[in-house]
Amino acid sequence: MIVTRILFFNNAGMEKQNTPHFYRLIFAENMRRIRRLKEISQEELAFDAQISKTYVCEIERGSRAVSIDVMGRIADALQMPLSELLNKSE
Amino acid sequence: MIVTRILFFNNAGMEKQNTPHFYRLIFAENMRRIRRLKEISQEELAFDAQISKTYVCEIERGSRAVSIDVMGRIADALQMPLSELLNKSE
Repeated sequence: MIVTRILFFNNAGMEKQNTPHFYRLIFAENMRRIRRLKEISQEELAFDAQISKTYVCEIERGSRAVSIDVMGRIADALQMPLSELLNKSE
Repeated sequence: MIVTRILFFNNAGMEKQNTPHFYRLIFAENMRRIRRLKEISQEELAFDAQISKTYVCEIERGSRAVSIDVMGRIADALQMPLSELLNKSE
């Protein structure tokens, strides 16, 4: 599998692989906005979503590429559907 | 930071950390459905989203916790808003 990926990267160009996608910022902004609206602290969210407070800060700054599992736990902790946390119009 | 996380895991319990969230399956099912609807092969999607075909298969089986950056590239390749790929009602 490693060989497949290396070959693929050589074909398609590797540089885009590490570029943050715009959705990272959309999620970060929605997450922070809804967390504040619901008066949930970063510590509370971290505890409920079972991640560290540092990780919450990093996600809200858009500096970490969060996984779907963690996104799901954050959505649950904020009592919001994950789809709404990724809505551009929000 | 490692110390913080270890302490946190001890407090909150580590087992949930590796549990796949239900949104993984929602994303997997929506992704496969829309890809087939648009008659896009796994190879084409892999190329457009700049991931390996193996990775596309794994995501569609729900066996990999995909990152928000990759989810964004998949949404772009399928020409769908990411929020719709995470919609439970779809």
